Amino acid sequence: MDILAQMKKFVEPESVALIGVSRSPEPISGLKFDILGNLLDYGYKGRIYPVNPHASEILGIKTYPSIGEVAEGVDLAVINLPRSLVPGVTRESVEKGIWAITIVTQGFADANDVEGKQLQKEVDEIVKGKARVLGPNTFGTANAFINFSSSFVKMEMKLVPTGVICQSGVFMIGYPGLTLVGKGIDLGNGCDVDFADGLEYFEQDNDVKVVALHVEGMRDARRFLSVANRVAHKKPIVALKTGRSGLAAEAAQSHTGSLVGKDEVWEVALKQSGITRVNDIDELGDMVKAFSLLPLLKGKRIGVVTHTGACGVISIDACQKSGLEIARPSSIAMKQFSAVSPPWLAVSNPVDTWPAIMVSKQSPTEAMAEAARAVINDVDAVLFVWLATCQQWCDEHSQLMMELANIYPDKAFVAHPYGPLAHEAAAKLEKTGKTMAFSSPDRAARALSHLADYSHFLGCF
Amino acid sequence: MDILAQMKKFVEPESVALIGVSRSPEPISGLKFDILGNLLDYGYKGRIYPVNPHASEILGIKTYPSIGEVAEGVDLAVINLPRSLVPGVTRESVEKGIWAITIVTQGFADANDVEGKQLQKEVDEIVKGKARVLGPNTFGTANAFINFSSSFVKMEMKLVPTGVICQSGVFMIGYPGLTLVGKGIDLGNGCDVDFADGLEYFEQDNDVKVVALHVEGMRDARRFLSVANRVAHKKPIVALKTGRSGLAAEAAQSHTGSLVGKDEVWEVALKQSGITRVNDIDELGDMVKAFSLLPLLKGKRIGVVTHTGACGVISIDACQKSGLEIARPSSIAMKQFSAVSPPWLAVSNPVDTWPAIMVSKQSPTEAMAEAARAVINDVDAVLFVWLATCQQWCDEHSQLMMELANIYPDKAFVAHPYGPLAHEAAAKLEKTGKTMAFSSPDRAARALSHLADYSHFLGCF
Repeated sequence: MDILAQMKKFVEPESVALIGVSRSPEPISGLKFDILGNLLDYGYKGRIYPVNPHASEILGIKTYPSIGEVAEGVDLAVINLPRSLVPGVTRESVEKGIWAITIVTQGFADANDVEGKQLQKEVDEIVKGKARVLGPNTFGTANAFINFSSSFVKMEMKLVPTGVICQSGVFMIGYPGLTLVGKGIDLGNGCDVDFADGLEYFEQDNDVKVVALHVEGMRDARRFLSVANRVAHKKPIVALKTGRSGLAAEAAQSHTGSLVGKDEVWEVALKQSGITRVNDIDELGDMVKAFSLLPLLKGKRIGVVTHTGACGVISIDACQKSGLEIARPSSIAMKQFSAVSPPWLAVSNPVDTWPAIMVSKQSPTEAMAEAARAVINDVDAVLFVWLATCQQWCDEHSQLMMELANIYPDKAFVAHPYGPLAHEAAAKLEKTGKTMAFSSPDRAARALSHLADYSHFLGCF
Repeated sequence: MDILAQMKKFVEPESVALIGVSRSPEPISGLKFDILGNLLDYGYKGRIYPVNPHASEILGIKTYPSIGEVAEGVDLAVINLPRSLVPGVTRESVEKGIWAITIVTQGFADANDVEGKQLQKEVDEIVKGKARVLGPNTFGTANAFINFSSSFVKMEMKLVPTGVICQSGVFMIGYPGLTLVGKGIDLGNGCDVDFADGLEYFEQDNDVKVVALHVEGMRDARRFLSVANRVAHKKPIVALKTGRSGLAAEAAQSHTGSLVGKDEVWEVALKQSGITRVNDIDELGDMVKAFSLLPLLKGKRIGVVTHTGACGVISIDACQKSGLEIARPSSIAMKQFSAVSPPWLAVSNPVDTWPAIMVSKQSPTEAMAEAARAVINDVDAVLFVWLATCQQWCDEHSQLMMELANIYPDKAFVAHPYGPLAHEAAAKLEKTGKTMAFSSPDRAARALSHLADYSHFLGCF
């Protein structure tokens, strides 16, 4: 069975056996860890085979004493049993002809004892050439497009065009305002199914436009980089590579049993492969959104259109730090905007629109639109900074940005709204599907810079 | 009149004249710019004297044809008239004996014409030795403790212990979840009242525990640094110094007419004065909160207690990047936590509590508490990372952190919650008044590092 077919069984299972399902999972301080219950809540339409020798039915679903008793073929087995029982059940699953096996249980390569390593070895030998294992120590896979997840913590999935490959449930669970999973593959220890396998799957997958990675380490970095380089030519890959220092490497060893490798080597290798490396969780979220919402750029020239000169200054600092260029628009274009500004204003980029609104009594959207027109021919992206204290301003400015995004599909339009309605403004911009907001000009510049680097990698300029 | 008394007239006025009040301010696209209306909405209890020669009453308040007609003494005059009218009205205010004059109008030192500079010079000569001017090009002052603000944009003020001195309304307006003003002084162009004046006021002010600065440039950096160094020994000062490059300096010139100075010089000078320099708006908010909520530290040793090994690895990266030390707790302490963990777990710092919860069936809060106890004697701060998908976990973990903060008032307890309830968890932590949350371990480490540096400056270790 080829890798793509194998990975489909993990991410798009038509049937799943849940081995080690509790009859009535006790909540731990109010939180239920319940793969079966979650799966039913999501509305998964595939066949489900719970395996539990002590029950004939759980949550209304017929239960089997062992995986061998299931008559039909099964795409995916999810094993959630004490570690000593895992090799035996893995063997039964292989004997049943199941190709995809997710091992949720902790305490294998991540364990600090001989038994854990021994159990891992047993599993490796059992599946060799006959099945693929995801994990151990994993939430497994998730797929919002078929309402499937094997996570024992209930997760939010959305039909976002993001494919996640990670080594921790953190990135499956996500953050407020940031649903990473679309489709998700938690490699856990990554003892068998690895980043390259996940990438090969997402390479072919039309639901996924952006791939997000959380990497602690991996066994075969060479294959990964080769596959990643190929995939990066088709869709953007964002990577949070953690474990930079020796101490972090030790911790990773005990978290997922991963060898992390030298950070300087990773830095160069990721860059050469066309992967966008991010440095923290905020930046990961920014880039997943940026690649989903914004077009590729034709260069690094930025125009700034702002309600406040202060954020104009801050935006220059931010652009220069990120290696972007503050465009110098033609004097003719600048003159056009001067016509709607008070005569004492030295119009340049960043374009300060506030005097036009205050002194020349321009409508704020018209002032913004005029300023954008003044810079548009000389820039690859426009950063808008606006006052978000009033719904109408937010609505009109978002509308303007969407219109510009429609007229100029090759340029990026992003915003830094400030004031009490900044979150609402951000949500509105994202909803357009073509623009987005950042919590600071610095984060906007960082994202545009990554976007430009990736566009350059693809040969857009 | 000494500087403190002068500044009190700006920030704590018992009476204010509003010169240039529109009879019925027209909203601009739904947003009203209305100093008088806002002031009445805030519930300011001082005397208000609107000045408008064309009305006898506005919004139910008696109106005066000129400032000279006001019989009573006036603490503060706020001038919001076209720039050509400003010198005349300033003279009238001075003749009336008003010491504090806020000039809202744009187009003075910030203007690119001779007239602007000439008008500025006239104002300077009129007030010399007789009055102080705030601005021009400013929102003026705000004081949540007396419900006063001269901002023409309605702002949110709260009784937060923060004093802001800035050169842009952005920092008066604030961001969602981040009310900077407490008390605020927008210097605008800073033609007269400058950072040092504001600092001298906040130095003496018991409502203000933390001072936040947004600096583009200033006339007298020497006096500023000398005052700042004195104030920094009494309360923390956080500074966003913008305008790092030549181009940014140009923009600042046109925004507030400020000379920004060489960035490398600022970097050293701010550090030597004990000022915490931040690099972006997010960090400014983080540090204002951190200094308000967290205690001074006795060192840079960090303990990490986490639900996820992944964020343990990320926290190590973050601490090392920020110059913090991942503590190596005693083996006895570690053994204690091993007792509640599965035997295969190599317990160390970061302490991964997940296996204790999953395998050893510890209550999550008890596991967190045990882990905290294992590191507490060897650290100066603890970073908790927890799963925020369930209200009860958030409640119990926040409760635990607050209890720890009460028992160990010299140590800082911060969190990085992940999952859909992360914002609620953050709000809950802030509400305790003693703990806080960050959107990434990186931001947590950055803040703890600043906190440690300031504590070191004060001689705490």
